[in-house]
Amino acid sequence: MRYCPQCGHAVNMTIPNGDNRLRAVCPSCEHIDYDNPRVITGTIPLYKGKILLCRRNIEPRFGFWTLPAGFMENQETTSEGALRETLEESGSVAKCMQLFSMISIPHINQVHLFYLAELERDDFHATEESSEVALFDLDEIPWNELAFSSVSKTLKFFIEDKKYGTYNFHEETITLNQLSSD
Amino acid sequence: MRYCPQCGHAVNMTIPNGDNRLRAVCPSCEHIDYDNPRVITGTIPLYKGKILLCRRNIEPRFGFWTLPAGFMENQETTSEGALRETLEESGSVAKCMQLFSMISIPHINQVHLFYLAELERDDFHATEESSEVALFDLDEIPWNELAFSSVSKTLKFFIEDKKYGTYNFHEETITLNQLSSD
Ligand SMILES: [Zn+2]
Ligand SMILES: [Zn+2]
Repeated sequence: MRYCPQCGHAVNMTIPNGDNRLRAVCPSCEHIDYDNPRVITGTIPLYKGKILLCRRNIEPRFGFWTLPAGFMENQETTSEGALRETLEESGSVAKCMQLFSMISIPHINQVHLFYLAELERDDFHATEESSEVALFDLDEIPWNELAFSSVSKTLKFFIEDKKYGTYNFHEETITLNQLSSD
Repeated sequence: MRYCPQCGHAVNMTIPNGDNRLRAVCPSCEHIDYDNPRVITGTIPLYKGKILLCRRNIEPRFGFWTLPAGFMENQETTSEGALRETLEESGSVAKCMQLFSMISIPHINQVHLFYLAELERDDFHATEESSEVALFDLDEIPWNELAFSSVSKTLKFFIEDKKYGTYNFHEETITLNQLSSD
């Protein structure tokens, strides 16, 4: 941020009174800009024991497979956002069962949420965001072509829990070090 | 947002290509501003069966009691943020045990997270943000002087779960309608 979104004046990076972090502060109108982490919300869409994945038709990670997920928007709940993204990316109508994973990724200022969800029908299709949408058996998951490490982690948790027949909530952190050693 | 944070030009509210929502878009440099929900993260700090509450020394809800919580910051995880806020607001060092509640509040574009946490020591104090910090027995909680409905809901869930000796994860939505009927 270089200019004040309220008045257009150039901003300074300073620590406001009563704060302890550098913020973009406007010397003209005193507007303080708070830049906070964003929530990515999505689903693990299940249908008769299979998982729905989407092949990305957009950057980043064009051509790789992902669980349907995207930025949570204003005026919605986390689960509404998850179902909206599932519909937008895969054309399918799902129902959230439970929050399954919450993954903080501090170096990119994101928190990823994935819900266990059930597809109402065997009904999905390619979309503007997904060149291909398909149901995968658990032993067919394209591990080497997954788009994001939060997706890989979530799918691994799912397969592990499925062995025991109990689905727990999983909280994780993905760090830059971890990524480079993957 | 009225001016582009990148170049200072006046922005227009339009729906960008491939999007379906109004965004502030800069006609000069093409910067698109995405305004997304924010995460508030905090704890239910426990010490020998009591709960630590903070009396707010700042607006909003000055003078009311709250669980320690605040805006998640960039470069931290949800639990790191919760412990940072606990330290900043109550002077106490805590340890997160498990995520206990996640409450979406769509009309103010927030998601509130509360962790069950244990205080390491009986050591806390008033701070810039809290005029008073105190441990409460469960039957002493000042229900009529609680600052936020997400705090009331979380404390009610806690007391309910404690009866059964099992602490579950609770997901909730607070709507404007609900608030006005409280
Ligand atoms: Zn300004
Ligand atoms: Zn611009």
